[in-house]
Amino acid sequence: MNGTSGHGLGAYSHSKGLAHVRETVANFIEERDGHPADPESIFLTNGASEGVFAVLDLLIRSPQDGIMIPIPQYPLYSAALTLKGGAAVRYFLDESNSWGLSVPELERSVAEAKAQGVTSRALAVINPGNPTGGCLSLEDMQGVVQFCERENLVLCADEVYQENVYVEGKPFTSFKKVVRDLNSSVELVSYHSTSKGFLGECGMRGGYYEATNIDPKVVEQMYKMASVSLCSNLTGQVMMDLMVNPPRPGDASYALFKEEREGQLARLKSRAQKLVSGLNSMEGVTCNAAEGAMYAFPQIRLPAKALEAAKNNGKAPDALYAMELLEATGICVVPGSGFGQEEGTLHFRTTFLPGDDKIDQAVSKMQDFHSNFMKKYA
Amino acid sequence: MNGTSGHGLGAYSHSKGLAHVRETVANFIEERDGHPADPESIFLTNGASEGVFAVLDLLIRSPQDGIMIPIPQYPLYSAALTLKGGAAVRYFLDESNSWGLSVPELERSVAEAKAQGVTSRALAVINPGNPTGGCLSLEDMQGVVQFCERENLVLCADEVYQENVYVEGKPFTSFKKVVRDLNSSVELVSYHSTSKGFLGECGMRGGYYEATNIDPKVVEQMYKMASVSLCSNLTGQVMMDLMVNPPRPGDASYALFKEEREGQLARLKSRAQKLVSGLNSMEGVTCNAAEGAMYAFPQIRLPAKALEAAKNNGKAPDALYAMELLEATGICVVPGSGFGQEEGTLHFRTTFLPGDDKIDQAVSKMQDFHSNFMKKYA
Repeated sequence: MNGTSGHGLGAYSHSKGLAHVRETVANFIEERDGHPADPESIFLTNGASEGVFAVLDLLIRSPQDGIMIPIPQYPLYSAALTLKGGAAVRYFLDESNSWGLSVPELERSVAEAKAQGVTSRALAVINPGNPTGGCLSLEDMQGVVQFCERENLVLCADEVYQENVYVEGKPFTSFKKVVRDLNSSVELVSYHSTSKGFLGECGMRGGYYEATNIDPKVVEQMYKMASVSLCSNLTGQVMMDLMVNPPRPGDASYALFKEEREGQLARLKSRAQKLVSGLNSMEGVTCNAAEGAMYAFPQIRLPAKALEAAKNNGKAPDALYAMELLEATGICVVPGSGFGQEEGTLHFRTTFLPGDDKIDQAVSKMQDFHSNFMKKYA
Repeated sequence: MNGTSGHGLGAYSHSKGLAHVRETVANFIEERDGHPADPESIFLTNGASEGVFAVLDLLIRSPQDGIMIPIPQYPLYSAALTLKGGAAVRYFLDESNSWGLSVPELERSVAEAKAQGVTSRALAVINPGNPTGGCLSLEDMQGVVQFCERENLVLCADEVYQENVYVEGKPFTSFKKVVRDLNSSVELVSYHSTSKGFLGECGMRGGYYEATNIDPKVVEQMYKMASVSLCSNLTGQVMMDLMVNPPRPGDASYALFKEEREGQLARLKSRAQKLVSGLNSMEGVTCNAAEGAMYAFPQIRLPAKALEAAKNNGKAPDALYAMELLEATGICVVPGSGFGQEEGTLHFRTTFLPGDDKIDQAVSKMQDFHSNFMKKYA
């Protein structure tokens, strides 16, 4: 109540969000990165997607303005670009290298766009990755920052899965920290959300973005744009406050919080491993480790007859596979064609969110289905 | 909890919003209008503004596409049009006729736009009016519907103040009801919000829009667009549910609800009258009755010396007036130039939201200030 100046949750807040919550978020960022954060550069939003839209609104001036997006990617970016009339400049993640990023591929992508008259204005990175489940190495991140600096691109870092890291040796590092550690002047927008992590409070639609190295006059325009919609929902703002300022050692609820948090993340990690190893045991399927986020994105190699059947049905082959899986088992996966994939490859996105009591059964159902599918189209 | 299929408020809902809430909204509309409403044509949004944005996204294809907006108008519309690269086709409300709408003025406006190569695609109406506080007569509404039908315009009815009607003889009638009563085929989008009425739960950001007479294929695209941002916040959805389904006679809480609701609306009405009569007592000030919404929008006639002082300061004269009022009294009003006004006229928007204990003092402070201002620049 103090944080709302006594107005509670029923009144509009400052268009950037409650000052109290933005201060809590700034403290969280400072503690995480070891570099200062300014509450005036933080905007609270209805989920991270609203922030993505707002920043794209600033970046895209004409259909010749491009935004570099990873392939595969969470389709928010491609959809938003279609809506806002900008060009999607696609760069491919390297499946053979844990879905890593390579600077030569970024250079190829930006040059190809340029040859087509498209000016790349920004580069979007999702880390940990959706749908890939990959976590970027520090070296990859440094390469991205330096590339953006050379090419004068705004770096848009979608870091909504920052709590969801299960791999050893690649602890989450924010792009903010990498930018500051390198003393880089690259313009950066970083997104976070209450919908992921171990909290998963999606319905609250809490989110924020932080602007780093952005000209104060541009931040002023961000503020003006935010004020058109008045403010984000207050419950989501308070949820964000709670998420970034959890119980601390010494607090009465700390032990319970720690147990729940660690238990939840450990269960996600164990299920991620079960799922990926189950997928890798399937004929013609290879799957990178789900290092983070909530997804595995296996590559499937289907028999010629399955490709033919898909063609005859006017369906993408991975969509045919997903539909038959759904019909046979009730398990819903998303065809790789929804996220984009390298020409000639097929994937699907699946998740390890089903509970401990369900994951073994789900994996075994997928295995049975897969083996039947391969026989059917042999 | 039943309405969320047991997921509570922490999970994403259907992208149109919880089915349960959309059914409640449909029942409310049916009861209000005496015409059926379809939950599948109702979209729950983060406040009404999100719905306005979504519909403009569908309507504007190029800078030659125009949206007719009232002058004066709540600047959401002009700001959204600037952002989305559409043209604002301005039609003037008739101050001398209780801020009413006239069909000849609509015809002038659409013809003028056409002469400039702008295709008008939709007409936005705010009823009850913001900032005018006016309520449209049934005849005006019928004229608007028929005009939109003739000109093939989508009618966008911002009806967020539908509970806030204080005038006798002009009970709130929705454009949905007028369209249905006339058996009109005009395409209509109607907006509502939890932020106004007697509830005023702005921070919840609950809102909805209803699509009437819109091709099902277009409604499908509305759904697709809504799904890009997943869903609106669940607390706002539930708040909408509570607002449109209040306690009924026989319910335990009905008596208290009735007392609070009627008391609140009666107090708003009484303060509206006090404010307007106070404004009309001021030299050179005329103000239409605040028939609805939460605002009065007086016209002020300032001395030549004040206009000159404003010019020398690089300020609009109404902005100079508002700033001096703020400095002298702490009372904040919004200059008419922020909403648009007829060339050569000056206004400001003020509100009767301050409590019963404050309104007399506020009016008397404004009167004192005004009289001093007129002397200062005499």
